[in-house]
Amino acid sequence: MSETHRVFNFGAGPATLPEPVLAQIQRDLLTLPGVGMSVLEISHRSPTFTEIIETTRTNIKKLAGLPDDYHALFTTGGATQQFAMVPMNLLAPGRTADYIVTGSWAKKAAQEAERFGSVHIAASTETEEFTRVPEQSELTLSPDAAYVHLTSNNTIFGTQWGQIPKQRGCFLIVDASSDIFSRTLHFGEDGIDLLYAGAQKNLGPAGVTVVIVRDELLQQAAEVDRMLPTMLQYSTYAKSGSLHNTPPVFAIYVLSLVTQWILENGGLEALEQQNKRKAQKLYNAIDCSDFYQGTAQPQSRSRMNVTIRLPNEDLETRFVSEAASAGLVGLKGHRSVGGIRASIYNAFPELGVAVLVEFMREFERMNG
Amino acid sequence: MSETHRVFNFGAGPATLPEPVLAQIQRDLLTLPGVGMSVLEISHRSPTFTEIIETTRTNIKKLAGLPDDYHALFTTGGATQQFAMVPMNLLAPGRTADYIVTGSWAKKAAQEAERFGSVHIAASTETEEFTRVPEQSELTLSPDAAYVHLTSNNTIFGTQWGQIPKQRGCFLIVDASSDIFSRTLHFGEDGIDLLYAGAQKNLGPAGVTVVIVRDELLQQAAEVDRMLPTMLQYSTYAKSGSLHNTPPVFAIYVLSLVTQWILENGGLEALEQQNKRKAQKLYNAIDCSDFYQGTAQPQSRSRMNVTIRLPNEDLETRFVSEAASAGLVGLKGHRSVGGIRASIYNAFPELGVAVLVEFMREFERMNG
Repeated sequence: MSETHRVFNFGAGPATLPEPVLAQIQRDLLTLPGVGMSVLEISHRSPTFTEIIETTRTNIKKLAGLPDDYHALFTTGGATQQFAMVPMNLLAPGRTADYIVTGSWAKKAAQEAERFGSVHIAASTETEEFTRVPEQSELTLSPDAAYVHLTSNNTIFGTQWGQIPKQRGCFLIVDASSDIFSRTLHFGEDGIDLLYAGAQKNLGPAGVTVVIVRDELLQQAAEVDRMLPTMLQYSTYAKSGSLHNTPPVFAIYVLSLVTQWILENGGLEALEQQNKRKAQKLYNAIDCSDFYQGTAQPQSRSRMNVTIRLPNEDLETRFVSEAASAGLVGLKGHRSVGGIRASIYNAFPELGVAVLVEFMREFERMNG
Repeated sequence: MSETHRVFNFGAGPATLPEPVLAQIQRDLLTLPGVGMSVLEISHRSPTFTEIIETTRTNIKKLAGLPDDYHALFTTGGATQQFAMVPMNLLAPGRTADYIVTGSWAKKAAQEAERFGSVHIAASTETEEFTRVPEQSELTLSPDAAYVHLTSNNTIFGTQWGQIPKQRGCFLIVDASSDIFSRTLHFGEDGIDLLYAGAQKNLGPAGVTVVIVRDELLQQAAEVDRMLPTMLQYSTYAKSGSLHNTPPVFAIYVLSLVTQWILENGGLEALEQQNKRKAQKLYNAIDCSDFYQGTAQPQSRSRMNVTIRLPNEDLETRFVSEAASAGLVGLKGHRSVGGIRASIYNAFPELGVAVLVEFMREFERMNG
């Protein structure tokens, strides 16, 4: 491989970014045009950055179709910090939060919440090895839950909610770290009340977390009245426009470029169609073969992470290694489950999927 | 100004980075040599990033001269999050923490700590408008303090501890956000037990915080036994090598390059000499003039932030604006105190100081 040749990156995150975005970052790295300094050096109070963060917020609101009573916040600490912030801000003493456990991250979110209050598992597919997400009818929601929490896409097990459940008489909180903006989303009446996502899969580099939150939740948070660290209060970010202290300037800059790129390429509708096509192509390849086995149940298949088993582990190891040699990198399944995983987030090119399908055919022909 | 001309950036942070570092980031932005993907796209579990974070840790240990019983951690949320993490981890119920208040940030640190336990102000120079830091003899330390906290450099008031106080029978915690690695530091016996610093002034871009912490404090933290969010426990970072969840990959990559740049340029001893020269040149210009007035008392003058008053505010406004036109940018004092502030961190070039001194002479000649 030459020093500068780019591979197809199937990694689960941090993940592929749009090449035009990378090219723009590179071009302007030494000096933002007309600013005289690198984006890595600008003040977070400068007019330049004010415009960048405003653009990012506006783009997110536009893409998500946010009603006026929602805020877009930028925090740090990834989804893992959100696992704590959600209950710390929203789970008042004496109340219960419902968690739907559909994979490792959903389980971690519930476990972290248990540090701060009472948690009820409204559904879990763990006994089925997380090969599917539950139907809405299977959920046993608490009568007076503070909120219900779900993980919209499960990277490790390759499952995804086809439809996010409708309003349940309490707030709906969604960890969308691995599928944010891969399809249209529903906020407002009967929709999502709080969504959070580490940026590093679908939106940008690691180092910033997008939180979309409804006003009403900030009010509820004010009533929880726990003594929280300033940086772990949603209100700190909402009041200051995410500028209470120095935010991760560069990561937000990249967010501004990626959200701009999505808008210029047809928004979430176009991305959803493209993501459907990419996933379908891979699932077709699996379904047409006895050599490859999808691990997720068909009705819960993820469009972001396609998880596959081969007849045995030796073949899987060889597959990953030969694919890497062919420029198809990051196909090893999560260490906790093994197998093959192709992560095909928003910025992953359709061509890369076609090349992988071709590689799969050839690999089966040689080893099947 | 041309689109790509670089100015002299006197901003207080985020701040100037070394140009060779920026050039390397730019060169490798699309693909890290031989890796086939951008540093913005690599997995935090990849061998490439493992090497980057290991290098960063090693460089920091080397530069700081860290004894073996210290860890270098990478967190997020800036110094402001440390204001909470320090007491949450180290201030057991029933104990007291001592805070030395030498400026706005020191005061904020103490205020945040009050949320979590008993705080004693061991000294404050607020009645003197923070124009100096106290002498060690002025400190009224608690007999059984959990720790004593100080801010080694005060960006807003242009003061700096000439010498960090020696061992006081309790842990010494230093917020070194604005002067880390600008001079040699003393860890180990009678030295600093925990140091934290947002990277964005002396070390890299906004988005990562360096925490240097002694083993003994991690043990004390384990005993505090408060129910803490996972991401706010120092032990989470120490145990996982700061890889409990996805860290800010790019910011750590830049840290690796900046620390490498410091090592290649003579380490902290060389930087200290250079920083002395730069500051001395500016203070000389002030002391030789009746037009310019330094705000910090001479024995407490900062080598990082030189704060200056002119005869009146109109002249200050004109100074800032004419300097900017001459390519000397970011000289406006903090909004809370006004005046002029020249921030001349590690990567700020000596040439820029010379140009500023020249500009000051000329401005005085025209307006004095």
